[in-house]
Amino acid sequence: MLIEPGKLLANINGPDDVKKLDQAQLVQLCDELRHFIIDNVSVYGGHFGASLGVVELTVALHYVFKTPYDQLVWDVGHQAYGHKILTGRRDTFHTNRVYKGISGFPKRKESIYDTFGVGHSSTSVSAALGMAVASKYQGLDDKQHIAVIGDGAMTGGIAFEGMNHAGVSDSNILIILNDNCMSIDPNVGALKDYLTDITTSRTYNKLKDDVWTALGKLSNFGKSAQEIVSKVEHGIKATLLSQSNFFESLKLRYFGPVDGHDVDHLVHVLNDLKDIKGPKILHCVTVKGKGYGPAEKGNATTWHAPGLFDKITGEIYKKTPEKPQAPKYQDVFGHTLVELAKQNEKIVGITPAMPSGSSMNIMMKEMPDRAFDVGIAEQHAVTFSAGLATQGLVPFCNIYSSFMQRAYDQVVHDVCIQNLPVNFCLDRAGFAGADGPTHHGAYDIAYFRCLPNMIVAAPMNEQELRNLMYVAQLPRTEKAFSIRYPRGQGVMPDWRTPFEEIEIGKGRKLREGEELVFLTLGHIGNYATEVCERLAARGIEAGHVDMRFVKPLDEKLLHEIFSQYKKVITIEDGCIQGGFGSAILEFMADHHYTAEVKRLGIPDAIIEHGEQIELHRECGFDPDGIEKAALAMLEPSLANR
Amino acid sequence: MLIEPGKLLANINGPDDVKKLDQAQLVQLCDELRHFIIDNVSVYGGHFGASLGVVELTVALHYVFKTPYDQLVWDVGHQAYGHKILTGRRDTFHTNRVYKGISGFPKRKESIYDTFGVGHSSTSVSAALGMAVASKYQGLDDKQHIAVIGDGAMTGGIAFEGMNHAGVSDSNILIILNDNCMSIDPNVGALKDYLTDITTSRTYNKLKDDVWTALGKLSNFGKSAQEIVSKVEHGIKATLLSQSNFFESLKLRYFGPVDGHDVDHLVHVLNDLKDIKGPKILHCVTVKGKGYGPAEKGNATTWHAPGLFDKITGEIYKKTPEKPQAPKYQDVFGHTLVELAKQNEKIVGITPAMPSGSSMNIMMKEMPDRAFDVGIAEQHAVTFSAGLATQGLVPFCNIYSSFMQRAYDQVVHDVCIQNLPVNFCLDRAGFAGADGPTHHGAYDIAYFRCLPNMIVAAPMNEQELRNLMYVAQLPRTEKAFSIRYPRGQGVMPDWRTPFEEIEIGKGRKLREGEELVFLTLGHIGNYATEVCERLAARGIEAGHVDMRFVKPLDEKLLHEIFSQYKKVITIEDGCIQGGFGSAILEFMADHHYTAEVKRLGIPDAIIEHGEQIELHRECGFDPDGIEKAALAMLEPSLANR
Repeated sequence: MLIEPGKLLANINGPDDVKKLDQAQLVQLCDELRHFIIDNVSVYGGHFGASLGVVELTVALHYVFKTPYDQLVWDVGHQAYGHKILTGRRDTFHTNRVYKGISGFPKRKESIYDTFGVGHSSTSVSAALGMAVASKYQGLDDKQHIAVIGDGAMTGGIAFEGMNHAGVSDSNILIILNDNCMSIDPNVGALKDYLTDITTSRTYNKLKDDVWTALGKLSNFGKSAQEIVSKVEHGIKATLLSQSNFFESLKLRYFGPVDGHDVDHLVHVLNDLKDIKGPKILHCVTVKGKGYGPAEKGNATTWHAPGLFDKITGEIYKKTPEKPQAPKYQDVFGHTLVELAKQNEKIVGITPAMPSGSSMNIMMKEMPDRAFDVGIAEQHAVTFSAGLATQGLVPFCNIYSSFMQRAYDQVVHDVCIQNLPVNFCLDRAGFAGADGPTHHGAYDIAYFRCLPNMIVAAPMNEQELRNLMYVAQLPRTEKAFSIRYPRGQGVMPDWRTPFEEIEIGKGRKLREGEELVFLTLGHIGNYATEVCERLAARGIEAGHVDMRFVKPLDEKLLHEIFSQYKKVITIEDGCIQGGFGSAILEFMADHHYTAEVKRLGIPDAIIEHGEQIELHRECGFDPDGIEKAALAMLEPSLANR
Repeated sequence: MLIEPGKLLANINGPDDVKKLDQAQLVQLCDELRHFIIDNVSVYGGHFGASLGVVELTVALHYVFKTPYDQLVWDVGHQAYGHKILTGRRDTFHTNRVYKGISGFPKRKESIYDTFGVGHSSTSVSAALGMAVASKYQGLDDKQHIAVIGDGAMTGGIAFEGMNHAGVSDSNILIILNDNCMSIDPNVGALKDYLTDITTSRTYNKLKDDVWTALGKLSNFGKSAQEIVSKVEHGIKATLLSQSNFFESLKLRYFGPVDGHDVDHLVHVLNDLKDIKGPKILHCVTVKGKGYGPAEKGNATTWHAPGLFDKITGEIYKKTPEKPQAPKYQDVFGHTLVELAKQNEKIVGITPAMPSGSSMNIMMKEMPDRAFDVGIAEQHAVTFSAGLATQGLVPFCNIYSSFMQRAYDQVVHDVCIQNLPVNFCLDRAGFAGADGPTHHGAYDIAYFRCLPNMIVAAPMNEQELRNLMYVAQLPRTEKAFSIRYPRGQGVMPDWRTPFEEIEIGKGRKLREGEELVFLTLGHIGNYATEVCERLAARGIEAGHVDMRFVKPLDEKLLHEIFSQYKKVITIEDGCIQGGFGSAILEFMADHHYTAEVKRLGIPDAIIEHGEQIELHRECGFDPDGIEKAALAMLEPSLANR
């Protein structure tokens, strides 16, 4: 059942239709847009709180600016649902985040109104500045360039780099700071405190109080003195709110704070700002989940992406499974970290703004002095971890595989070159699912295994994850240790297994075979287990080895394998260029083995969003694909080539 | 001839010896330290201006703080020569940056006083904060943690991320902002303007003036009113310099600015700061090249690392070669970019703070509106380039290979996933030489070729670089194009060849052989040319193919090669895990070829500093090493394995 839009929204097929409305109608449009989002997300799922928080801003922006000529960049993009609905995607919005449906993020391929693809945070200022500088160079002086960025995203280093350049660029860029004190989890850090501070005018008030005390006695001097006092106050306020403001320090003209839910006032302000040339920032205060009671009053993290819910009662649906389920890998990480930290007082935990996403919140709650949310700041998270390691602590730095790309130099320069024993846990390795290509963890095997002083491992199940974490915290004085695991559930409902020490670099034989062997890395190996059964049912005995480590490779085991098997299929949930399979090929070349090898994994293409299994199927390494590859290899006509 | 240290310096074998001096002697120690640096660098080379600028700060820090118990982190490390000389490396200092000698940067392996290895900028706040947080957790409340960071390094995003965390950390960290308005080139950006602004107190003066005007009339009210006015002024100043300062916005207590060349005052201030708990910043104004006339008065960029010079006259020695020399690759890049930009008005150039290092300064001078120095901000440089590309411009973003690691996510997320036609020129690919492991460009082939929508190329000579750049600027609507080339000279004195269109993904056969073929990528291929001659002199005809592109691979050519040759040596100036040689192995596996392959390149280890040829030799891919590998492969006893 498709969601019915409201009366006004039903006729909005693009921003031009928004512009046709009377300004007085915008409140109603906001109302309809908000309900359309609530209705859709409650039934079809998706991100929620962020888009509700910018309904008025979205409507005002498309009312005032000439999109797509004017360039509108949404940072991260969780908040762009309203934008999508107003720009021609109302009737496909129910396919949001579904395989072959529209993306949960702005995306250039999807719409001319999506000027810049997003997903990772903090890029919008740099992107919009590039556009603005290009427009200036091309003589398009009337063109506007708007970056909408949250206070959480503002803590990412690239946003600062962009502002530092924007401030001296003399280009037509408007940064809109969407200040709701939240990332996915509550925003942290000094800048957040500062924004709260200026929003509530504490700095100004403090100065006023100081001066007022000094000026107090002037009342004795009569009315003209009071007028002077008033002028002094005015002067201080003007100066403080312009010259001494954080953003003004970066040479951005600062406006605000304004109420981000007053669409009328927003239209007014944006119209004014349109005529002010040069780099500027509008500080807009919003509430995540605005207009939906349970989200506004409830836990903002929960309502960031609540899953399906009853829009009337605000009850979030939870499936109660019939039999015990395997836990999420992230929860195995979170609980195991606390378990280990209770035994090893040197363990500390670090997350860049992903307490709930990584389940680091479990340790943050149990051991608040030993777990650190450093904000959206992956680079800092890694170098901070390196600093902790220099003092003998044992850091577990948990970063999603695709976000780790943002701290690559810090891993190389601050960890590997220095040979520091930092532990990295890479969640969301492999296909992230509905979040799509920006969030797929496709490259980490390739980009980590080429680094010296790096151990690269992946557990096939919960017990393996626990044991790898156990090994990673045992005393060692060198080498980084990376453990990758996917989004979602493992395979062991009874996952709290006792810790066992795994020898670093040792794989495990799971099944002996005759002609063909599967070499797998990580959770995806469970598909191979299934395929081995299927093949056995056909009378084919295939071997299966869970390599566990792509670095160091278990060379002893590989020598056995290549002495035994002439056909090898490698399976990884990562890019096949330079990945696990390539490591096997390197071993073969170095040792003059000549088996036939088929590498299964993520091909050299951008894979879009969808359920993990759908994407595995698309890439030919779901169980069917693996079975097919095995049969093709065993087919003599092919195998004898 | 070793440089004689002055009388005091001759007895300084560690910081404890500094502490034994009377404070009154520190001026002399500074003088001797400065001369020791001048004497050494003029004769042995190295970085210059930065270390001269922090002589007083270095002496004061080791005088006041209990190093190595107190943790002192130097950002970048160009400025740490004085630190090295005072901490036990005076007598080995002449081996600075020489193969097997001491490193040009602080390095944990080298000294207990080098608490954190550096080379890339902007890491010191995060590292020192990690240390400080660890100390706090370990109950070491008296331990001090000091990050010395330049105003240039302060523009790198990770520094901001670190400060944002530090401000709310309640840990014992002192950030010393070494403000000299310079990176290697003059610093740029809004923050620099701001620092100049507060150094010269313009903000304060502006406010004072405003208020003074308003208060002016109060003089009529007599002396007690004047006193009140004075109190108001004081209150404003205190508030402005504390609460409204950029750094105070980030909850760092701000002190300064102080004169960084007054060692007496520095000792006084640092002693005071030692007793102030919590995160704080000391703004220290210094002059790069301080105390050496030609460096102070001359071009600070030239004197960053001038090479050898006559310390009396300040004349920088230039070798006048007897015959015409091949140009540096960077200059071929710089001149060619301007040449192309004159023909193609869509071309723009981007450098993150490396105008002189990349020779982008040629375009910045000739076409100032089309070439952008964005400051030390690699992440921003890439996303900014992506923004430019969305508007139809043709960006050439030049970033050293090792610095590109810092923008990896931006390449993945903002360029490749969006399939935007951005051109990357990676200078210093392969071994950087004397700068050592932090600057070696070892991983780019591996970390780029695993990305979809990425063309990865490397020219073997100047003509090839020019032609690759020519092809990169021809109209295309998709794919990133990466061109890597090494530090230093090419091979063609007559390098201004006419442009020729190279087909993307096409290699070139340079020499036909019998049994063995060299497949090479980039400049390192010239070694293979030489080795082919040597082998021919022994009666062995080896083939040589310059593949030019590692992505896309020239599959047609590779089919020919693997039909013809049974022995293959791949040569690359990059890591052999996942690199060019592995791409060849992948091709072989995919097409069922079984030739014997030896991959030469950078092994799985951190390779230290030295001349490029020394490092190639160490890794076995200098001409001797390549020849040896070829002979070993051709030796029947080995070849028949």
